[in-house]
Amino acid sequence: MAGGSGTRMAADMPKQFLPLAGRPVLMRTLEVFYQYDPALCLVMVLPAAHLIFWKQLCRQWSFDVPHHVVEGGRERFFSVKNGLLKIQQLRCAAQQPPKAGRDDLVAVHDAVRPLINVDFVGRCYEAASRYGSIVPVLPMTESVRRVAANGESQAEDRHGFFRVQTPQVFRADVLWNAYQQDYRPEFTDDASVVEASGERVYVVNGLRENLKITMPEDMVLAEYWLKGK
Amino acid sequence: MAGGSGTRMAADMPKQFLPLAGRPVLMRTLEVFYQYDPALCLVMVLPAAHLIFWKQLCRQWSFDVPHHVVEGGRERFFSVKNGLLKIQQLRCAAQQPPKAGRDDLVAVHDAVRPLINVDFVGRCYEAASRYGSIVPVLPMTESVRRVAANGESQAEDRHGFFRVQTPQVFRADVLWNAYQQDYRPEFTDDASVVEASGERVYVVNGLRENLKITMPEDMVLAEYWLKGK
Repeated sequence: MAGGSGTRMAADMPKQFLPLAGRPVLMRTLEVFYQYDPALCLVMVLPAAHLIFWKQLCRQWSFDVPHHVVEGGRERFFSVKNGLLKIQQLRCAAQQPPKAGRDDLVAVHDAVRPLINVDFVGRCYEAASRYGSIVPVLPMTESVRRVAANGESQAEDRHGFFRVQTPQVFRADVLWNAYQQDYRPEFTDDASVVEASGERVYVVNGLRENLKITMPEDMVLAEYWLKGK
Repeated sequence: MAGGSGTRMAADMPKQFLPLAGRPVLMRTLEVFYQYDPALCLVMVLPAAHLIFWKQLCRQWSFDVPHHVVEGGRERFFSVKNGLLKIQQLRCAAQQPPKAGRDDLVAVHDAVRPLINVDFVGRCYEAASRYGSIVPVLPMTESVRRVAANGESQAEDRHGFFRVQTPQVFRADVLWNAYQQDYRPEFTDDASVVEASGERVYVVNGLRENLKITMPEDMVLAEYWLKGK
């Protein structure tokens, strides 16, 4: 997922194309999945306005990781849906109907999280093949507070709460069914969509350096992590 | 608050003494409060093992911001309590009994948050003089999940949740009374202690760069923010 056409796009737009330790963020992300398994079917969902730019960038960088490109939607939900539709089409073209088996998995990943690695991606896929639906999470390190509209607030015990990362990995049929629901604003990630369809979601340990690059300071941090490798 | 004698100390120990853009973290933090109001009574709570080292460091850097130093306790709770006791003692010595008035405020701040500034500290004090008890907070940007012991999990609507920062500012009598309670493990910050004593806590807008330096990557980020100034 590399952005839809919605409100968040304007701010997110430049960073995913910026070079990070010498290579655009999106290319790093795709490469990790490709290194994990070159047979994966990679689908990148991009804002309509960036499709041509991305093609030019791939040519310019001689980027040779095979992947499909799909146009994003109004909200993240619709972007993921477009991606899933593409996967279905590719399957039909290849005469591979959905198997609904344990090995038939779809990972959904934020393209602006380039600091994943092959081990971590492998752990996520393996957990999903065992549990069906998984998300990587990290514990909260800051105190957490619930705030009401009038400014009054209440402490929450942070120990039960976790911050959610991607890739989130699901059985293909489960994810496809979940995305047949109507959109709701509380769908902030794929796990929340899958859960709303009645499925249980399990967690795996997230990766500390797997940050989402949205602010200028995130690029600084990402460079730091990459230099350490 | 610059660390107690508890389990977290070992990991936190070095960073607060490390130079950040040319000056130890703790000195930067104290300087901001001093710049805000040179008449403030500054009390730094340090682990017992670091008291002498800190004195040496102050001499070495010719650090001249006047402040008192107090030994920390087993948990943050006991460290804050030691700090409050020092404030009471200083008051008694100066024959200033607690006034319990609106102007009599105590700010509790994590010393490893050096990226505060005079404006922000001022906003916190002013809000506390209006509302009695305030904490600075920032919205959650990541999806949030509640995880049960068996690994099952449930999405939480992140929109009501906020990440808590410091300085947390309180009326002196309110904070003092709150710290007469018995310690509980869910006291992760001062607001949770004050709230448990029956007081309402209000929120003010936090500061994006006001990060807590605990991990090596936090120093990198802190340098970045300081360079931008």
